[in-house]
Amino acid sequence: MHILEEIGKKAKDAALKLGALTAGVKNRALEEMAEALLSREEDILAANRMDLEEGEKSGMSPALIDRLTLNPKRIGEMAQGLREVAALPDPVGEVVAGWRLPNGLEIQKVRVPLGVVGIIYEARPNVTVDAAGLCVKSGNAVVLRGSSSAINSNRVLTEVIAAAGESAGLPAGSIQLVPLTDRESARQLMRMREYLDVLIPRGGEGLIRTVVEESTVPVIETGVGNCHTYVDASADLDMALEIVINAKCQRPGVCNAMETLLVHEAVALEFLPRVAEALRERGVTLRGCPRTREILPDAEEATEDDWYREYLDLILAVRVVSGLEEAIGHINRYGSKHSEAIVTRDYQAARRFVGMVDSADVYVNASTRFTDGGQFGLGAEIGISTQKLHARGPMSLRELTSTKFIIWGEGQVRS
Amino acid sequence: MHILEEIGKKAKDAALKLGALTAGVKNRALEEMAEALLSREEDILAANRMDLEEGEKSGMSPALIDRLTLNPKRIGEMAQGLREVAALPDPVGEVVAGWRLPNGLEIQKVRVPLGVVGIIYEARPNVTVDAAGLCVKSGNAVVLRGSSSAINSNRVLTEVIAAAGESAGLPAGSIQLVPLTDRESARQLMRMREYLDVLIPRGGEGLIRTVVEESTVPVIETGVGNCHTYVDASADLDMALEIVINAKCQRPGVCNAMETLLVHEAVALEFLPRVAEALRERGVTLRGCPRTREILPDAEEATEDDWYREYLDLILAVRVVSGLEEAIGHINRYGSKHSEAIVTRDYQAARRFVGMVDSADVYVNASTRFTDGGQFGLGAEIGISTQKLHARGPMSLRELTSTKFIIWGEGQVRS
Repeated sequence: MHILEEIGKKAKDAALKLGALTAGVKNRALEEMAEALLSREEDILAANRMDLEEGEKSGMSPALIDRLTLNPKRIGEMAQGLREVAALPDPVGEVVAGWRLPNGLEIQKVRVPLGVVGIIYEARPNVTVDAAGLCVKSGNAVVLRGSSSAINSNRVLTEVIAAAGESAGLPAGSIQLVPLTDRESARQLMRMREYLDVLIPRGGEGLIRTVVEESTVPVIETGVGNCHTYVDASADLDMALEIVINAKCQRPGVCNAMETLLVHEAVALEFLPRVAEALRERGVTLRGCPRTREILPDAEEATEDDWYREYLDLILAVRVVSGLEEAIGHINRYGSKHSEAIVTRDYQAARRFVGMVDSADVYVNASTRFTDGGQFGLGAEIGISTQKLHARGPMSLRELTSTKFIIWGEGQVRS
Repeated sequence: MHILEEIGKKAKDAALKLGALTAGVKNRALEEMAEALLSREEDILAANRMDLEEGEKSGMSPALIDRLTLNPKRIGEMAQGLREVAALPDPVGEVVAGWRLPNGLEIQKVRVPLGVVGIIYEARPNVTVDAAGLCVKSGNAVVLRGSSSAINSNRVLTEVIAAAGESAGLPAGSIQLVPLTDRESARQLMRMREYLDVLIPRGGEGLIRTVVEESTVPVIETGVGNCHTYVDASADLDMALEIVINAKCQRPGVCNAMETLLVHEAVALEFLPRVAEALRERGVTLRGCPRTREILPDAEEATEDDWYREYLDLILAVRVVSGLEEAIGHINRYGSKHSEAIVTRDYQAARRFVGMVDSADVYVNASTRFTDGGQFGLGAEIGISTQKLHARGPMSLRELTSTKFIIWGEGQVRS
């Protein structure tokens, strides 16, 4: 596909120049991009209205319509996000390690941009701006490929920020949107190894699975969160109650919300009725294992499939376990390796849980809802990696970089 | 394929236990594995003879026969390699970073094993032992898939080290060889995302390309080295001569050997005849661009294809360039992003070269032959990554790890 090839080539050329820009130039570009979003608010809203009309015509759900909707407040937040990225330290050029060899060679391991980052994402148009900002700051060219439902919004947003960025000194081609939204164009993008250094899918499970299956470009898998909270025999049950309520209800539609509650059999009889009442008050439906349903007869029956589910909704699977080992086994078997918590007062149980649970983020006595680049103090976030290669957990600027070995010599040869 | 599934499952179970072993246990296992190699020398040599007979029958080239051959010295080297890995520091458990959040949560980013590492490799049976040793030390289970030509050697080597490792406390399934060597089994392995956390191909370009194209398991691309040396206008030509000879001739069949020489036009007339004479004395054939051939009429004609070639042989492509920019442009266009060197006395040229050349290892005034885990002081090496994701350049124990966030709280919930 000729146009994708062109986009790729342009991005690759831009990347070589972008990697050499100083933080000063990049930060000015980010500020200009933020300014431009605000000054072009009307054009952006007009394009967004076109998408919304299309969406309503095609019967899009209210939740999706809400995700797609821009308004002055949301545009202001996008601009603010760019300014916050400008305020973060530049990851490029950081000397990660360095040493001198016995033969006098001096080795430095230096942080460099990845090169060209591809992002394939679904409805929310703010991803266009957030991802572009993080890529610019980390010295990467970005190729954005959003969904058809947001194509008008994405097109105007990209035009606005790309033009502002270029006028502030970014090389042409630093920020590009793929104007095609058919499946074939996505597939082409996934095979552009020659031009893309990494591809990051952001969206639902189906999108992520497709990219993982079909991409020959290296992928960072993000997002699916089947998160667990395990209430240990020794737990402070008041604390457990607060953590469970927060992890399930504070924002149920996101990846770090809890989907399954595991309760030690020794406290199930005391804890489950309390937590069930509190959750039901908040509209949560419970799906329990047989032992749970002995204690909570009103709970629905959980099937094997429920242990794998990321509900993203006010539904909670509940299982009574015989102890720590069974809880850890359950999480490692059914979980998506995102975020898990134990509530306990037992030193050994806490240490064993964090050691043996094979997930990106493991908590003792806290809500899984903290798994987030901003909450962790890393600054803005490009996604949460649930794979082990390259990056794991919340990804920010450093995770958009690679390293390079630079070796300073004075004529050394190998004997 | 049932047997691969079984191997994968066993490896995954082993990995969870392996990750929790102390360095003491892992080091003892490595020592026992080394001992066992030495005490089982005769069995290993007998199996190797079967492979060698097969190889000779099927008309294998002398170079490949040499790579396949084991003898007491080589077995001793494998054992020694395991002991050196035992002596390296344990990467697992290293706290890479840690901080306290304003809400009191304490975050630690801790190094953990990747889990299950798959290695697909060609003739040399020493890879079986080297890879297994590095994986054990970094707490990973390993699934080895060697070539049919070395199957008997690999089988005995794996039996010997796996048994010795297990008797010293490694969980069963830590070290496994895929007994199948047909293409379909390799393809199956490449799609075992459920069990493998990473797949590392070690071998020729064809093997690496196949794995990159077909694997849904995350891949670390290794090895192809189309390396360059650029002799700048300001170079110390005596130094340049030594570096060029070393980079081309010291061991031409390996990935960090030079394949293309770029010479600044201002010194071409003086330098090329000198370097040509020295290289020809060492049996090197030159393939030059038109300007090179004006100066060296005996050089063969280089085609466009030559600039892309990794000869791994006593052949050198030579190009006269107008200056630094053209040299950098040539390397970024035709190179494989492995190792490149500039020979110069010019501060600006040196800095610009290391900044703009987009390769894993960039040298000033030294031979590219130093790109190697051992030479860099990293200890043994599992391969040299030429991709930007996860690891770049020589990979050792740390590159076989991931990280995990551990968050210690006292009841914190998100507001």
